[in-house]
Amino acid sequence: MVIVIQCTDEVGLVSIISSVLAKGGYNIVSMREHVDVIANQFFARLVVNSILNPEEIEEELLRVLPQNAVVHVNPQPEKNIVVLVTKEYHCLSDILTRNHFKTLGANVSCIIGNHPDLENISQRFQIPFHFINHHEKTKEVFEEELKAIVKPYKPDYLILAKFMRILSPSFVSSFPLQIINIHHSFLPAFIGANPYKQAFERGVKIIGATAHFVTNDLDEGPIITQKITPVNHSFGLKDLVRAGRENETAALAKAMQLVFEDRVFVYNNKTVVFD
Amino acid sequence: MVIVIQCTDEVGLVSIISSVLAKGGYNIVSMREHVDVIANQFFARLVVNSILNPEEIEEELLRVLPQNAVVHVNPQPEKNIVVLVTKEYHCLSDILTRNHFKTLGANVSCIIGNHPDLENISQRFQIPFHFINHHEKTKEVFEEELKAIVKPYKPDYLILAKFMRILSPSFVSSFPLQIINIHHSFLPAFIGANPYKQAFERGVKIIGATAHFVTNDLDEGPIITQKITPVNHSFGLKDLVRAGRENETAALAKAMQLVFEDRVFVYNNKTVVFD
Amino acid sequence: MVIVIQCTDEVGLVSIISSVLAKGGYNIVSMREHVDVIANQFFARLVVNSILNPEEIEEELLRVLPQNAVVHVNPQPEKNIVVLVTKEYHCLSDILTRNHFKTLGANVSCIIGNHPDLENISQRFQIPFHFINHHEKTKEVFEEELKAIVKPYKPDYLILAKFMRILSPSFVSSFPLQIINIHHSFLPAFIGANPYKQAFERGVKIIGATAHFVTNDLDEGPIITQKITPVNHSFGLKDLVRAGRENETAALAKAMQLVFEDRVFVYNNKTVVFD
Amino acid sequence: MVIVIQCTDEVGLVSIISSVLAKGGYNIVSMREHVDVIANQFFARLVVNSILNPEEIEEELLRVLPQNAVVHVNPQPEKNIVVLVTKEYHCLSDILTRNHFKTLGANVSCIIGNHPDLENISQRFQIPFHFINHHEKTKEVFEEELKAIVKPYKPDYLILAKFMRILSPSFVSSFPLQIINIHHSFLPAFIGANPYKQAFERGVKIIGATAHFVTNDLDEGPIITQKITPVNHSFGLKDLVRAGRENETAALAKAMQLVFEDRVFVYNNKTVVFD
Repeated sequence: MVIVIQCTDEVGLVSIISSVLAKGGYNIVSMREHVDVIANQFFARLVVNSILNPEEIEEELLRVLPQNAVVHVNPQPEKNIVVLVTKEYHCLSDILTRNHFKTLGANVSCIIGNHPDLENISQRFQIPFHFINHHEKTKEVFEEELKAIVKPYKPDYLILAKFMRILSPSFVSSFPLQIINIHHSFLPAFIGANPYKQAFERGVKIIGATAHFVTNDLDEGPIITQKITPVNHSFGLKDLVRAGRENETAALAKAMQLVFEDRVFVYNNKTVVFD
Repeated sequence: MVIVIQCTDEVGLVSIISSVLAKGGYNIVSMREHVDVIANQFFARLVVNSILNPEEIEEELLRVLPQNAVVHVNPQPEKNIVVLVTKEYHCLSDILTRNHFKTLGANVSCIIGNHPDLENISQRFQIPFHFINHHEKTKEVFEEELKAIVKPYKPDYLILAKFMRILSPSFVSSFPLQIINIHHSFLPAFIGANPYKQAFERGVKIIGATAHFVTNDLDEGPIITQKITPVNHSFGLKDLVRAGRENETAALAKAMQLVFEDRVFVYNNKTVVFD
Repeated sequence: MVIVIQCTDEVGLVSIISSVLAKGGYNIVSMREHVDVIANQFFARLVVNSILNPEEIEEELLRVLPQNAVVHVNPQPEKNIVVLVTKEYHCLSDILTRNHFKTLGANVSCIIGNHPDLENISQRFQIPFHFINHHEKTKEVFEEELKAIVKPYKPDYLILAKFMRILSPSFVSSFPLQIINIHHSFLPAFIGANPYKQAFERGVKIIGATAHFVTNDLDEGPIITQKITPVNHSFGLKDLVRAGRENETAALAKAMQLVFEDRVFVYNNKTVVFD
Repeated sequence: MVIVIQCTDEVGLVSIISSVLAKGGYNIVSMREHVDVIANQFFARLVVNSILNPEEIEEELLRVLPQNAVVHVNPQPEKNIVVLVTKEYHCLSDILTRNHFKTLGANVSCIIGNHPDLENISQRFQIPFHFINHHEKTKEVFEEELKAIVKPYKPDYLILAKFMRILSPSFVSSFPLQIINIHHSFLPAFIGANPYKQAFERGVKIIGATAHFVTNDLDEGPIITQKITPVNHSFGLKDLVRAGRENETAALAKAMQLVFEDRVFVYNNKTVVFD
């Protein structure tokens, strides 16, 4: 069972936390702790043997920790997610496969596409697919439709699995630190559109992909994980895109695993990742 | 300041440890803890703000922890090492350079070679070089001479930086878990002699190097770190050796850094590495 | 359009080959050539602009090259494959997905399982699945049934996508250099059964996977590609298996891409890979 | 013996080149050829058995190839280099070590520093060190002094081994495609000053280093090689710098090897690298 804690740092926090657990007779199987000394922030993730009464331990911890502490004892062990897509299949297929074989660590509630292309693959796995056309619509209207579909599913996370629309600040703020995007470059290199074209023109020898939380600044949210792959002069633009797909799929899969296992903490537009 | 602890696992160990520190007013800046549930072993590495009285804290911890606990508060922050070499220069040069610019995290007391080839480079950095010829000598005599030179330096570790003699169990047992070797393969592949020749003949697509503690079983000691590099059909044996050098240098450098920073614990012929 | 050539080496081969092409007015867009000087073998892969009459060029090349030359001009551009599986889903799912979206570079004719577990996923992609129970059957009988199903599909390659039965020399020799296996270790480390258990017990810091052609020596066939992933002390056996899956999927996918694009040549139990 | 050729692409170039060699009785041991179809540029690197009369072959090739062809038969097999440094030791030490043990593939003529810090290490290897103070001097004067020292050595390449001054367009144009720089980021991420500080603030999970030819646009020259290393939240700025050093050393060493072995071609601000 997992316990995650984030709060202002103080002397004695580990002692306070571990006393509560020791008193309950719980054994700490593994523990990761990090203090950002400059930001004065404390982060901890503990794995303990099974807890009979998670709510009680959570209350007890909140009682003895600093006021601003965020504590989750046994946070929702299987997350619910909604996946947003456009036309590219690779990240979605990977998610659907893992979901189907129960190795995703989350449950896919539905897929939403601004193109109908990926309805077929979704149906093959019997996951509901909603097509929302964005043509001849304001972003506002499009996002209202999006929200109307998403909200009833009450997802823990929205996964942008190669969703090629930029979401408005208003939409993003409705899902704070709940939206995960895969950007097809090694951020902060090649921010914005057509990163593979930019990479091709620059003649880089390594390409990358970055999974990050979405905030209001395009491609500027907290980075969760990055993957790279070597390339060379023989790679045309199409080859870069093809090689990049493997990176994108792997980076997003890794990021989801880390987030779904409650290994990722966010502060100051950065992440602490206990991997 | 670093604290490392290894002992039998029990409920409440983190609480016990952190109470001792909290009572002293010490803040835990970072903490790594691991329990091997099967082996029932507890490992912890803590970084705390500076401790006025390390011996006192150490005694206090030993008093409250399980009887078999090994505790080091502020373990010898700069290790002393003796480096054993044969003819190959790359690992030794890297060690000498880092030592010279104070980035090795250890102090090189002397170099010992069973060939004189590397005396010149050692002298350039003004590090004593001892040549011990192994020809027309039993292993016993050779190792007695070796010990006679090593012992007065009282090294924390012996680094086998491409030292191509196999040490006897008797010698090894004089320096328990104090001898670090770099093996020029991705262990356990290609145990023994001529790993690059073996790799060449097998046609592998990746070669590796392994830094490990030396025990009585050849190439079977606890692994500290491994590095790999991709190769292909165009690599002849000499090219493999050349590419392998970079791996060997990097793997040994990384292993030394981890060990010198007290990040490596050994048990059951394995390591716990808090990197 | 691709041309691949393998033959005994002689002075002037590139000149001979390129003259044939220049005479026909064909432009060599890219060329990779390798000579194994010790084995006296010549390998070349050329990409030329489209060839009107591949058979003619092939004949012309065979006429002027050494007698033992193997020449393919525009080799079967989309291969047909049969995939053999047992229970594990990850490699098969990846193959089915790529096949479905036409990015596999081959056409999956059918799936054969010695367990029925993966019939469901195969059906979702409308690929025929044949279940051949191996229980209470001699290997001979089992393999006869296997051959009876495989042969009518006339596959270019048999892909062992986590097929956990060892094939007999007789079966293997019916498909010379046409069977590709994914072995769940960094060969030659951990040959044979339970490589992750072996890796766990040895305490390695990197695990790998190896895609290779199957020959009569178990896990000893020519290596096509290898992938690795770092692991650490916190990985239990189940975690190694999970991390290993990503390696296995990636290594097999890469190997298939290389083979299907006619980039792999085999000789002396090794491969030349023009990647 | 190596032959490198770069020219406008035409049908039959490989045939033309290989005929010249076949006529002379030379065997092509390995060959890499690449055509950039869009730029209509042809690149080739051939390794042939030893050539008695390189000048004759070179003339013959120039006679039959397109007018703009650049041909080098057995290009200066050991390059002469001048190394420019500031204060950081790691790249220079690596160069000095390899130079000393004859594995650099080049001969270090001298070191020039705009600080005196690295004079000591240079002297240990008996390589001339020139200190040119840049204080209270215009860039013009500084660079005149630099040129005055460099020119007599007639170096093939100038290596900027953590040289922290920006060179003027005028200086750069005196050494066209002869200046190699190591930039301490994964270009084009973190162009300009303090890339590790930028990386720290952005919270990236991978850092990199880029070796490139210097042109008049800062950090915008053709990329030769890039290396990366994973980092995490526990890396402070100093840790990033330390981890980055390994990348920088490795990327520059690799780039030098590739350039010194005549494996790198430049055009359109990109490189073709036959590695």
